[in-house]
Amino acid sequence: MTLKPSSVKGPLNGITVIDLTHVLSGPYCTMLLAELGARVIKVEEPEKGDVARQVGPFINGKSAYFATINRGKEGMALDLKQANDRSIFERLLEEADVLVENFTTGVMEKLGYAWEELHARYPGLVFASISGFGRNGPLAETKSNDLIAQSMGGVMSVTGPPGGPPTRVGVAMADMGAGIFAATGIISALYHRSQTGEATRVDISMMDGQVALLEHQMARCAVSGEAPKPMGNKHSSLAPFDVYETADGQFAIAAAGDKNFMEFAAAIDRPDLAKDARFSSIPDRVANTQALDAEIEPIIRSRSTSHWLEVLGGGELRIAPVLNVAEVMDHSQTRARNMVVTADDPDMGELKMPGNPIKITQFPDPLTRKPAPDLGRDTEAVKAELDHQMKENIE
Amino acid sequence: MTLKPSSVKGPLNGITVIDLTHVLSGPYCTMLLAELGARVIKVEEPEKGDVARQVGPFINGKSAYFATINRGKEGMALDLKQANDRSIFERLLEEADVLVENFTTGVMEKLGYAWEELHARYPGLVFASISGFGRNGPLAETKSNDLIAQSMGGVMSVTGPPGGPPTRVGVAMADMGAGIFAATGIISALYHRSQTGEATRVDISMMDGQVALLEHQMARCAVSGEAPKPMGNKHSSLAPFDVYETADGQFAIAAAGDKNFMEFAAAIDRPDLAKDARFSSIPDRVANTQALDAEIEPIIRSRSTSHWLEVLGGGELRIAPVLNVAEVMDHSQTRARNMVVTADDPDMGELKMPGNPIKITQFPDPLTRKPAPDLGRDTEAVKAELDHQMKENIE
Repeated sequence: MTLKPSSVKGPLNGITVIDLTHVLSGPYCTMLLAELGARVIKVEEPEKGDVARQVGPFINGKSAYFATINRGKEGMALDLKQANDRSIFERLLEEADVLVENFTTGVMEKLGYAWEELHARYPGLVFASISGFGRNGPLAETKSNDLIAQSMGGVMSVTGPPGGPPTRVGVAMADMGAGIFAATGIISALYHRSQTGEATRVDISMMDGQVALLEHQMARCAVSGEAPKPMGNKHSSLAPFDVYETADGQFAIAAAGDKNFMEFAAAIDRPDLAKDARFSSIPDRVANTQALDAEIEPIIRSRSTSHWLEVLGGGELRIAPVLNVAEVMDHSQTRARNMVVTADDPDMGELKMPGNPIKITQFPDPLTRKPAPDLGRDTEAVKAELDHQMKENIE
Repeated sequence: MTLKPSSVKGPLNGITVIDLTHVLSGPYCTMLLAELGARVIKVEEPEKGDVARQVGPFINGKSAYFATINRGKEGMALDLKQANDRSIFERLLEEADVLVENFTTGVMEKLGYAWEELHARYPGLVFASISGFGRNGPLAETKSNDLIAQSMGGVMSVTGPPGGPPTRVGVAMADMGAGIFAATGIISALYHRSQTGEATRVDISMMDGQVALLEHQMARCAVSGEAPKPMGNKHSSLAPFDVYETADGQFAIAAAGDKNFMEFAAAIDRPDLAKDARFSSIPDRVANTQALDAEIEPIIRSRSTSHWLEVLGGGELRIAPVLNVAEVMDHSQTRARNMVVTADDPDMGELKMPGNPIKITQFPDPLTRKPAPDLGRDTEAVKAELDHQMKENIE
């Protein structure tokens, strides 16, 4: 509460976060807090550090993965099993607003840092834990990771080609989902503290975070009595709504409403389709989606993607190319929104990484970030800051 | 700021949100705010209402989809093109803390409710907009939806079977991602307001929200010079890390670290694999993943899923069944975490829906929710509350 604020301007300016997290769910959470103006001090085990430092891709022997998720944070190396380092850590907690950790449930208790103890000693400290399955229930102490949480949370069971196997989302969505929900919980707790003075305990589960995304799949399951299955790029209650193959690629189109479907049918020179009884309403088009595809697929496949984007785009229809990551990074909209930012790493050079999706107009949205810390980079500087602080308090 | 608080206990108690949103990104955002204790008053166009009311699945003619995403909110029907209703809406804004909308960029301006005007008139009001591409850039006014945002944001390009086409995540992840980021931005803005008195403008783009999830894909793209491709359930830098077919189903396993791989090899009666030079380190196993699969797939396929969960589970290995939505809903962990909740709808009966993934121990985590409003259900009650308020202010 009295450490220097972050140099990043944002709504969380003045907040200090002590970050005991590793790999992705926790570091993604604290990265968001740093982007929003909190000062984040990452505390790692000496010598080993966050295991993400060992995960590729590597540039000049350093992990670009670690660097992406930990940009803008400070780094200390402290051994929480060693008395001297514990006292430094506890001095940090005295000055901090938030503690975040994502050890397996039980580890903080063994370290002597259970919520009850921390809350008694640091009554203003918000304490957030992220774990595979949360703090209670039969799986509370079971280890997890992104693949496990995607498998058990239901999203995998509805992702993939129609009739095909369940498919993992190609980004670590269970980790990041938990990280974003954790950030939301932490900021809510800070708001609550601002109103009441009370600090609270946030308990986030990766599996919960996946279940929370079953927006209408639970209802579908309840109504039909059957678990929904993967449907490729299609939608259960809208058509056409799919990715179609062209002569040289593919594009996505949603032309589900009656007016949109008429516009679409006219644009592909098949206005008759909009008058066809099989395709005359949304439910008709969903029921006869195979017949509809049999009519439109050959037409779309006869011309290039750019032809169709021009013919079908620019109006009321929702249509888009399917961009790969290189194309996304180079897209004029991505650039206009500062969604590719860079950090200048002393060993890796200039590294590109995703920007901040939470834009608040009154704050700057810079194109550069401070690089992620090498292990223990800021240990001495933060210790000196704490010492200075202590002297000032005495004087 | 003086309306009655929500009856739901949470960190946002006392906050009132006026909700002009429709379908999913915005309603998912305000659902999260309601779950955290904010009072959410949803304002819909008379007669038509939120188009999600027309999207299935239906129970007794009502949308279970709409009901899931809008539980716990109040509902008013107001015509913002009509003077009398506009004055009611403006009275609401006087009392509110937050306004959220997800019209296409430009619509609020046409209604006379641009940020500049609202901020001048209601200086304490946080105003959040969610749109397909954000408030600036060449695509600012282009229409979008979940499919389009997934197509253009890059996640689709890395999701799907290896060698197969880009595949949409089977839940509306672009909508919900934007909704969660919007909630995070709004709560951050409320925290900032609590510290400084300043109300701010939140600007969320569905495409930005997707780009923000490319956790290490940008780095991979930069390092290799090539856009990453779908890899099914595999991981680019870890192996084994996949879903394997058994005699009667499949399971997910991550046994990537050396110790874990030794344990795994012993448990499937192939301890020799851990000594095989092709599989002796994480990079070796990733480089020779096809050879590794050729060794282990026939073994795993020879026995049932339950056999393998018993033999491989319970220890240090990360292993899980791939649960479908019905199995997720019935799972003991889901139930222990209150992740299936119900609302008692007057027409649909008891409806099951996902619970709140943001657990804060000091607040209750109830198993029931108030049902979503029928169109205009609370118009008169809220108007009466505003009138009463006004009288009290005069007296």
